[in-house]
Amino acid sequence: MPKVVDHDQRRAEIVLALWQVIYLQGIDGVSFRSVAKAAEVSVGRIQHYFSSREEMILDGCRRMVAAAVADHGPTELPEHPRAARAALTAVLSASLSDGDEFRMGASVWAAYQAKAVSSPRIAEIVVDALAERASLLAELVATARAAPGEESASPTEADHAEALHLASLSEGLAHRVLVGAMAASEARRLLDAVVGRCMAAGSASVLCSPGRDGAR
Amino acid sequence: MPKVVDHDQRRAEIVLALWQVIYLQGIDGVSFRSVAKAAEVSVGRIQHYFSSREEMILDGCRRMVAAAVADHGPTELPEHPRAARAALTAVLSASLSDGDEFRMGASVWAAYQAKAVSSPRIAEIVVDALAERASLLAELVATARAAPGEESASPTEADHAEALHLASLSEGLAHRVLVGAMAASEARRLLDAVVGRCMAAGSASVLCSPGRDGAR
Repeated sequence: MPKVVDHDQRRAEIVLALWQVIYLQGIDGVSFRSVAKAAEVSVGRIQHYFSSREEMILDGCRRMVAAAVADHGPTELPEHPRAARAALTAVLSASLSDGDEFRMGASVWAAYQAKAVSSPRIAEIVVDALAERASLLAELVATARAAPGEESASPTEADHAEALHLASLSEGLAHRVLVGAMAASEARRLLDAVVGRCMAAGSASVLCSPGRDGAR
Repeated sequence: MPKVVDHDQRRAEIVLALWQVIYLQGIDGVSFRSVAKAAEVSVGRIQHYFSSREEMILDGCRRMVAAAVADHGPTELPEHPRAARAALTAVLSASLSDGDEFRMGASVWAAYQAKAVSSPRIAEIVVDALAERASLLAELVATARAAPGEESASPTEADHAEALHLASLSEGLAHRVLVGAMAASEARRLLDAVVGRCMAAGSASVLCSPGRDGAR
């Protein structure tokens, strides 16, 4: 019987080595040779699976997005406001971690983000991922804001704006945590406070104490 | 008479070439040789001004922070609430631009930010810059929130939290604009709406329509 080769598994192993190279040497340090060395396979094996250095780098970017969605996204959209709010907070805080096991992935993702500025093909993948994230968050905002028992409606323009606000905020916070400018716990507390305010605008909020509204 | 050499000017010219190299080849593409080539000077000249590749990269990072502060920071802290609010919006939106002349600087800064994750010495400079920015914003928030005629007080804990909220939001938005996920004008509008809500929490806000607060 012929040996069954799981090609997708092989590609995934090569991509793991690719990420190690990006982590240690940046995207510009990627070559068939450097990835082959990190994967402990021959250059020919890498070339069998990837037709070019660029294809390999792009595949690594797509797989990183897919892994993040699998790790952080809700498996299905919650129907109830309370569940939606919990999912909203979970999605927003998923990248706020300062654990070491988190560092490599976050660092490689940061390298892709930086490279997206000058590489249109990486930008395309990053932009799609950012848009997907914003639109998932808009769905969650709309459902979280619905009254209990109310049918959850499609997101309004205000829900989309709120989603972009929260998405960008959590991306900015994730970066501050990643470089060590902020503790993950502090970033999570701040995010919770802002989500609270977004869900209850008009009433007391944690960030702007209501007693001073008149004076302010 | 001996020729007067402006050493700081020479270093600044080399750093400009360094930024070009980072823009085109990433930080890992930086070497005495690649920078000498971009600067159209000898490798010896570069070595005369920088004792190591790392010192050169760090100097480029410090100069980028200094240039951003000179370009975007207010020259002095405003005393009046209205002026403080205008300065707050100006500082927050300074990096929200999609002009091409802005691209190189933003891209090099993004490369430094990504590298900060794995390089403690770059992280130190980036973290200081982020902390300076947050503390300037906290001063502006405190003054912007003071009642007209009221002495502007030192920032409270709530002002600091608000400053971190707005700083992280504008950093996240800047990144979305930079990779092309969002137009600069849209990011500015969103930022203005959030600043408006921060300054007027408890009353009607642009993002959460007050008519729906009860229901939400």
